[in-house]
Amino acid sequence: MNENILKIDTVDLQDDKLVIIDQTKLPNETVILKLTDQRDIWHAIKTLQIRGAPAIGVAAAIGIYLAAKEIDTDDFNVFKTEFAKAKKYLASSRPTAVNLFWALDRMESVICEKPIAVIKELLRLEAIKIREEDIAASYKIGEYGLSLLHDGDGILTHCNAGQLATVRYGTALAPIHVGRERGMNFKVYTDETRPLLQGIRLSAYELVADGVDTTVICDNMASQVMKNGWIQAVITGADRIASNGDACNKIGTSGVAILAKYYKIPFYIAAPTSTIDMKVSRGEDITIEQRDPDEITKLWYEKCMAPEGAKVYNPAFDFVDNELITAIITEKGIIYPPFEKNLKEIMGE
Amino acid sequence: MNENILKIDTVDLQDDKLVIIDQTKLPNETVILKLTDQRDIWHAIKTLQIRGAPAIGVAAAIGIYLAAKEIDTDDFNVFKTEFAKAKKYLASSRPTAVNLFWALDRMESVICEKPIAVIKELLRLEAIKIREEDIAASYKIGEYGLSLLHDGDGILTHCNAGQLATVRYGTALAPIHVGRERGMNFKVYTDETRPLLQGIRLSAYELVADGVDTTVICDNMASQVMKNGWIQAVITGADRIASNGDACNKIGTSGVAILAKYYKIPFYIAAPTSTIDMKVSRGEDITIEQRDPDEITKLWYEKCMAPEGAKVYNPAFDFVDNELITAIITEKGIIYPPFEKNLKEIMGE
Repeated sequence: MNENILKIDTVDLQDDKLVIIDQTKLPNETVILKLTDQRDIWHAIKTLQIRGAPAIGVAAAIGIYLAAKEIDTDDFNVFKTEFAKAKKYLASSRPTAVNLFWALDRMESVICEKPIAVIKELLRLEAIKIREEDIAASYKIGEYGLSLLHDGDGILTHCNAGQLATVRYGTALAPIHVGRERGMNFKVYTDETRPLLQGIRLSAYELVADGVDTTVICDNMASQVMKNGWIQAVITGADRIASNGDACNKIGTSGVAILAKYYKIPFYIAAPTSTIDMKVSRGEDITIEQRDPDEITKLWYEKCMAPEGAKVYNPAFDFVDNELITAIITEKGIIYPPFEKNLKEIMGE
Repeated sequence: MNENILKIDTVDLQDDKLVIIDQTKLPNETVILKLTDQRDIWHAIKTLQIRGAPAIGVAAAIGIYLAAKEIDTDDFNVFKTEFAKAKKYLASSRPTAVNLFWALDRMESVICEKPIAVIKELLRLEAIKIREEDIAASYKIGEYGLSLLHDGDGILTHCNAGQLATVRYGTALAPIHVGRERGMNFKVYTDETRPLLQGIRLSAYELVADGVDTTVICDNMASQVMKNGWIQAVITGADRIASNGDACNKIGTSGVAILAKYYKIPFYIAAPTSTIDMKVSRGEDITIEQRDPDEITKLWYEKCMAPEGAKVYNPAFDFVDNELITAIITEKGIIYPPFEKNLKEIMGE
C-alpha cells in the first residue's frame, strides 16, 4: 500500500485536469482525483483533500488556469472581470495560507492585452512553471535543511509538511527525504496532530513509505519525548511567515516551539520564500481560520465525544513567536535571527 | 443526560458490592457497575472503567475488603497469605498511581491476630473510612484551591481530576465545584487529553453538569488559548508526587506546565496527601506505565489511522519538574516551594 506514494506527485496538471491525491482518504485508501470544475477545486482545498501551503498554491495556480480556460469571450475586459471573479472565489477557500494568494496574484500578473487564446496559454505555462519551481524549492530546502542535521538524529515534526504538502519532497520533511536519497537514516517522531490527524495519517504514511524509522505520538507526548533525550531537532512547515519572523503554522506548532526552547532543542521552520509575507509585520496580524467544532467532537468517531452543552474552540493555526525560532530554512538559504533584517535581505527589499 | 452525574458518587460500597460508573461509556451512556469478584475489579481498574488516582485508591480499598471477605479459613496465617496474594494481584492493575499501593498498605495495616470474622469487619470499616476521608479531602482541596482563584477566572485543566477521579468533588476540579456551590462562575478550558479523551469525555461532562461555562480544546490548542489571555490559572491533578515536588500526572501535563511558565500563568497541582510518595525522591525515579499502541491508532476509530510499519509510543504519564509548579494544593493546605522542605513538613517527617 505504501510503496508508491512517493512516486506520485501530490499536485499535477495532466490533460488539462488538476490531478491530486485525496488526502482525506489516506492512509487507508489512495484515491486520485481529476478535477476541472472550479467549484470542485474550491471544495478540494476547503475540505483538505489537498492541503499544505505550497501544495495549495500550486493547486490554486492550476485551478485558476482551468477556470480561465472556460471563460468564453474574445473581449479582454470581460475576460479580466471573469478572471477576477474566479480568483476571488478560489482565494476564499482558505484564509490563512499566503501561498494561495501569492499563486493567484502571480497568475494574474501574466495577463496582458493579447488575444484571449494567447493569455490562456500564458496562464497554462505559468501554472506549470509555479509547479516546477515548487519541486525545485522543496529540493533546495531539503539540501539546506540537511546541512543542519546529522545521520541518526532524532527529529520531531508536527502536522504534515512533507511531500503531501508540496508537489514533491516537502518542506519540513524534505531534508529527511533528500537524506534518504543519500543513504542517511533519521528517527522521526510525528505528532498525530489533532483534530485532522495529518501527522499520523500523512507524515507517518510518507515517512514509512520512504523507509524512515517513524514513531507516532499524541500531540501531548512531545514534551516527554524531548525529555527522554530522543530529539536533536524540531522541524515544521509554515503557512505564512511575517516580516519579523513570526511563523503561522498548524495549530500546536507554537506549543512545540515552546517545549523545544525549554529542552534546549533547535526549532526550525522550513518553507519556500513564497510563504513569507512582507506585508504582514507580526504574527498577531495574521487572521487565523476557525474551523467546524465537529472536527474535534465528531469527525472519525461513531458518536459525539463531547457532552451536550460544551463549547468548542477549533483554530486551524497558531503562530510561533520569532524568539522561539532557531532558523528559517528556505530554498534561498538558511535565515537566522535577527529575522527582521535578514528576511528583508533575502526577499530583496 | 447530564443532570444527575454529580449526585452519584464515583465509588461506593453498597450491599457488599463495589459500585462504580463505567467511565469508558461516558459521555454517551451512564452505566453503573456492581462488582464483587476481584478479577472484575482488577479489570475495571486496568481498563479505566474506574480511573483517577484517588478513586483507584478507594476502589482498591473496597476491592481488597471484598477479596478478603471471600477467604474461607479460620487460620490467621492462611488468611494473611491469601490476603497478600489478593493484594499483590490488585496492585498489579496499574503501576503508577501511588494511591493504589497506599490504600492497599493501609488496609493491610488493620490486620491483627483476631478472629477472622473480626478482621473482615475491621477491613470493611477501614474501606468505608478511606472512602469518607477521600470525600473530606476533596472538599478541603476545593476550599484551599478556591482561595487562589477569583470569580470569573479562566482555568485550564488537563485530563480528568474531577469528581469522576475521586468519590466526590475531585481534586483539580474541586475548587470549581465548591465555587459553584457558593455561586461563583469560572470559564473552564479542558484539553481533550489524547488518547483516552478523559478531558472531552469526562471533565467536560461533569463541568457542564455543574453548570460551568466549559470549552473543549485539543491538547495542541492550549498554547493558543493561553496566548489569547483567556487563562488565569492552570490546575491539574497528580498520580504521584515525589518528595522534591516533581509531580507525575496524565501524559501531557508536563507540556502544559511548560506552556504556563512561558506565558507566566500560575500552574497548580491539586492532590490529596495520599498522592505524595516520600519514598521517591524525584520524578525520574517513577516508573511510567506504557500502554497499548492501539489506544492511539485504533481506539474510537472505524479504521486504523496509522500506516502499517509506523511505531507508536504511548506513555500514560509524564512528570512535571518541580520548578514549573507554583503550588501544590492538598487537603492539609497549600504547599509552596521549596517543596523538598515544605513537603517534609506537611507530611510530618
